[in-house]
Amino acid sequence: MTGTSLTLQALPGIPDIEPGCDLAAELLRAAARAGAAFADGDVLVVAQKIVSKAEGRYLDLLQVRPSARAVELAARTGKDPRFVEAVLGESRAVIRAARNVLITRHRLGYVMANAGIDRSNIHHSGGADRVLLLPRDPDASARSLREAIAERTGARVAVIVSDSFGRPWRVGTVNVALGIAGLPGLLDLRGGKDRHGRTLETTQIALADAVAAAAGIAMGEAAESTPAVLVRGIHCSAPEGDGQALIRPEAEDLFQ
Amino acid sequence: MTGTSLTLQALPGIPDIEPGCDLAAELLRAAARAGAAFADGDVLVVAQKIVSKAEGRYLDLLQVRPSARAVELAARTGKDPRFVEAVLGESRAVIRAARNVLITRHRLGYVMANAGIDRSNIHHSGGADRVLLLPRDPDASARSLREAIAERTGARVAVIVSDSFGRPWRVGTVNVALGIAGLPGLLDLRGGKDRHGRTLETTQIALADAVAAAAGIAMGEAAESTPAVLVRGIHCSAPEGDGQALIRPEAEDLFQ
Repeated sequence: MTGTSLTLQALPGIPDIEPGCDLAAELLRAAARAGAAFADGDVLVVAQKIVSKAEGRYLDLLQVRPSARAVELAARTGKDPRFVEAVLGESRAVIRAARNVLITRHRLGYVMANAGIDRSNIHHSGGADRVLLLPRDPDASARSLREAIAERTGARVAVIVSDSFGRPWRVGTVNVALGIAGLPGLLDLRGGKDRHGRTLETTQIALADAVAAAAGIAMGEAAESTPAVLVRGIHCSAPEGDGQALIRPEAEDLFQ
Repeated sequence: MTGTSLTLQALPGIPDIEPGCDLAAELLRAAARAGAAFADGDVLVVAQKIVSKAEGRYLDLLQVRPSARAVELAARTGKDPRFVEAVLGESRAVIRAARNVLITRHRLGYVMANAGIDRSNIHHSGGADRVLLLPRDPDASARSLREAIAERTGARVAVIVSDSFGRPWRVGTVNVALGIAGLPGLLDLRGGKDRHGRTLETTQIALADAVAAAAGIAMGEAAESTPAVLVRGIHCSAPEGDGQALIRPEAEDLFQ
């Protein structure tokens, strides 16, 4: 992955995604419109939001009964108790709660705000107050898109399902990789040498997170957001990994 | 910054940088060799390491007398007491210390491992055991490179001075922006609407960190690392910022 030139191309024009929709087909159509033919080694970065929508990962807050814990956390955070209950339902543990802040460990291990549950970008329909949960298993979602694209085009593209994360000591969000297929999540340099022969101190590079972050720039944000980006030019021979490998094990968490 | 296509081009062949070296000239030579002419709106991402080297930010550990605190932290972390003293000298506060881990708040506010002090990639010469500190003021370094490039080429390129950071809940490092000139560090979407007219919950995008992360991919790592990358295709009209704006204020730190 070195001395390289990389290109990132947003794939605009993806329509509103409905539950059960053939997301791979929509992505192929978007690529065709953008004049991009998928090729072996390409990386397709897809926003979590459209994957969750295709998987119908909606929850109607009108159906949610907040627990006592949710009511208490809602008071502490200033959030809707039903929303907090939805977050707790998707979480293993609360990491931090404060005014406007609810950081949990998602059932899949991600430490993130609101267990990744999104209230924006959701239609209100039939009196429902729907929120969107993360995909059931973002690694499986990535694998399934990779397989569907390979079947239909013959191209072995890697797929990253990405979402935006805050950072405890830095302002603003960057995209990270929740699910990965066909790409190493991490490049392990442990024991490697620098160009002067010294053993490297930086040991592991979060390649898939960097690719997700890069794609986030091309996605844009807000009203004009494009939820899929094709990344070309990543060459690396490290073994493929999954999104779980990017999660620091709880036993190594110094900030619990 | 939307619906865009981005390109990243590594600028290889930068020689070992010596203190006092004309870094802008080296970057211009590297760009010329790569066939890249700088243009208005380009973003040049430069690894902290070569900026620090040009600024002569070396410290000889043989000259360092570890304090009692450094000795204690060295025992806890398993690090060289003189190295720990150097870290403390560059830091305002110790955030976490554990086996092989020393995370501090750098005097400029960055929360990072070892106050950004690097022992790899450093020459040993004349019996010295030199380490390399962060640039004195990475925002000033970025501004100075931006000005020098504008003077010599007429092109108004943005400059990011980047370094690799670990993350508390995720494995591996990604590059972030320490210093910025000519580019917004953050895109502020507060109060913005999504494409269905709902108020956005994600409020600020760490644009410069995402650009630094993207450039990190093109830089590569280890022996073949290329410490400068030209990024093309970022269009955004938000006000320019600096690297300090990406640091979460201590008063908002939930994980101290």
